Amino acid sequence: MKVLITGIDGYSGWPLALHLLARGHEVVGADNFVTRKRVNEVGSWSATPIPSFPNRQKAVREIMGKELGFHKGDLTNYQFVHEMLAQEKPDAIVHLAEQRSAPYSMIDVHHAVTTQVENLTGTLHLLYAIRDTCPQAHLVKMGTMGEYGTPNTDIPEGFFETEFHGRKDYLPFPRQAGSWYHWSKVFDSGDVMFASKIFGIAATDVMQGVIYGVRTPEITDRRLLTRFDFDETWGTALNRFIAQAVLGLPITPYGKGEQRRGFLALEDSMQSLRLAVENPAQPGEYRVFNQFDASYSVNELAETTAKVAREFKLSPTIEHPPDPRVELEQHYYNPIHEHLPALGYRRTRELEEVIREIFHDLVHFRRRLEAKRHVVQPTVQWRSVDSGGAIHARGPPPSVHHGTPPPVAGDEATSENPSA
Amino acid sequence: MKVLITGIDGYSGWPLALHLLARGHEVVGADNFVTRKRVNEVGSWSATPIPSFPNRQKAVREIMGKELGFHKGDLTNYQFVHEMLAQEKPDAIVHLAEQRSAPYSMIDVHHAVTTQVENLTGTLHLLYAIRDTCPQAHLVKMGTMGEYGTPNTDIPEGFFETEFHGRKDYLPFPRQAGSWYHWSKVFDSGDVMFASKIFGIAATDVMQGVIYGVRTPEITDRRLLTRFDFDETWGTALNRFIAQAVLGLPITPYGKGEQRRGFLALEDSMQSLRLAVENPAQPGEYRVFNQFDASYSVNELAETTAKVAREFKLSPTIEHPPDPRVELEQHYYNPIHEHLPALGYRRTRELEEVIREIFHDLVHFRRRLEAKRHVVQPTVQWRSVDSGGAIHARGPPPSVHHGTPPPVAGDEATSENPSA
Repeated sequence: MKVLITGIDGYSGWPLALHLLARGHEVVGADNFVTRKRVNEVGSWSATPIPSFPNRQKAVREIMGKELGFHKGDLTNYQFVHEMLAQEKPDAIVHLAEQRSAPYSMIDVHHAVTTQVENLTGTLHLLYAIRDTCPQAHLVKMGTMGEYGTPNTDIPEGFFETEFHGRKDYLPFPRQAGSWYHWSKVFDSGDVMFASKIFGIAATDVMQGVIYGVRTPEITDRRLLTRFDFDETWGTALNRFIAQAVLGLPITPYGKGEQRRGFLALEDSMQSLRLAVENPAQPGEYRVFNQFDASYSVNELAETTAKVAREFKLSPTIEHPPDPRVELEQHYYNPIHEHLPALGYRRTRELEEVIREIFHDLVHFRRRLEAKRHVVQPTVQWRSVDSGGAIHARGPPPSVHHGTPPPVAGDEATSENPSA
Repeated sequence: MKVLITGIDGYSGWPLALHLLARGHEVVGADNFVTRKRVNEVGSWSATPIPSFPNRQKAVREIMGKELGFHKGDLTNYQFVHEMLAQEKPDAIVHLAEQRSAPYSMIDVHHAVTTQVENLTGTLHLLYAIRDTCPQAHLVKMGTMGEYGTPNTDIPEGFFETEFHGRKDYLPFPRQAGSWYHWSKVFDSGDVMFASKIFGIAATDVMQGVIYGVRTPEITDRRLLTRFDFDETWGTALNRFIAQAVLGLPITPYGKGEQRRGFLALEDSMQSLRLAVENPAQPGEYRVFNQFDASYSVNELAETTAKVAREFKLSPTIEHPPDPRVELEQHYYNPIHEHLPALGYRRTRELEEVIREIFHDLVHFRRRLEAKRHVVQPTVQWRSVDSGGAIHARGPPPSVHHGTPPPVAGDEATSENPSA
């Protein structure tokens, strides 16, 4: 199949490209490199050094013997989207090209607006361009388990039979997101569901859990590494915990640490997305996959991190700062995940072994962590925190780019900023 | 109380200003006059001649002896919003300044994006500006009953107790909107609910039914008239039916005509909004009002229109063109509306008498309908309708303005286009 990956330069876009190429699919990608810029904007970079995109294409050619097509551009430009789809006419589009950081969206009003406007506009542009240029293409849209929040019931895969005042209907499950970013994904889900209905588009909306890991079997060479973010804004809690342990900083689960979320390994996320691509939705079908395989509390992540850290001769400590987010610190959590197993999904990785693998890489790239150790600890507050109501934020306006990080000898660091 | 009305130049913003002034409230408004421009864009105008805003302020001064404050500007400009709220520090903000036409949002991809981006951005800007300049202000946000779609159950006021797999929670009722416009209101509801939670904003989210009528008791003079849209894009079905009858065109309920929606008279909408303003939500409270008082099928509207038309010596006919929208033509419909009656809401107007009142005005302004008779019949298709997938649309890009309508002798017609 021919698969277009939007956001191919990103954390999961890149290993997905490698995984689909290795499985014999034709892959083309699109990216505007904005994640590289925005990670720089908050003063950080990827712990793993990331080659420029032309060097990534070259590595794929030399190591895998495969060609990887690419379109540089922004999905908020409709002409770009329309021309790319008209030219490529892919069988499937895996849409990963969205602003993906909840803390980034919470910095201030401009980051909130940027997040929602960019994500909605890109998705609407794709939906219309599919209708007008490749109406048979299957859209696999990256959403998040965070769309559901933490209701006091099980969480179905998108829809549920409900009863109200004695009458029944099969309805979308209520969404209760916890950041402007998570709401942008809720809104995308509404638009994709509606486009599927009115345009007849085949769509899979992926409610993905938090991904962990930095390796997949296709990453056989340093030049094929994907990015690993560890700063407060772009890194997941687990990424930050491991970075904290490597740097000798306290590991900081927020509040009570009983917040529970769904997770899956990077390799198993790739497996899931491939299964969605290879088993497409029908025209006009809008289906929802809850894409995770186990749920952990933040404390479990912190404790597993500390356990593995000790194997690496580190001396981890755990502290509990107040939760800057507005979320329940203790709650019921039981999402259903049956659709992907029905397509053959089998879990291949366990949390602890993947954490061990991450420690190997982060100890190796420790100098890149050391150079940015000031960005690991949290500062963005979800709620209004002072009498003036201003959120404490370190961020500049979202359109501003604050220079290139200093290069680290031996790493292709400057290539992280393609605009430099 | 001091009330800021965003969208004060619009169909319901203007009579709300008059109503609140008559009740002794202080009123300031904001508008960017984009509805005037966009109605021109599709080749139409208001059936009632609308004075320029300075002339509206002058009329209020001369007829009511009241001052009406005004800020010309666009809510997508955060500086404008922040400075206005910091200066005015209103007790309540009634937010009506959104793109409000479903057909307009369905014209093409650019109108879809414009609708969702403008509406979401304006609302986010208001939420942050309230937090930072007047955190005690009560936000009354105009949504639509169309957010709910037509589920096969009763429709609660925003939230319902539901059970899934034996566990219960009190959750937002699922939304299933039927146009990009209606989805933009769903998305706004998510953002307002979340801002209420994290910023502590007092918010009333109004799920309003379709409003009918052109008169309120405060409209005692021709210079105080509000707008009345009758074209396919900006007019409601009832407005178009009455215009069709006056023009001797067939009345055109779509499809079977059994689509049922909630309605209320303009005067009763003003009553409802005033009740919301005078009985504010508590800080951090997000409440939802289903604001309508009766539901009618499209056929009932058409038949009542035809009945009243005959009193005016007109010879109405009814035709049923295929439904251009993607909606159920026959469905269950029973929304609950208890919150406003609990605050003292009482219905004051009946559909048939209001239709009679509209006929009086439209027969009087018949020449203004005749000048635009080509814009009444429907052309925008919701679904993809040809092999290329293009939606049949008459609209130019949303940012383009296509000139001034020809003046009609005796009406202040050119003032409808403030940019001319």
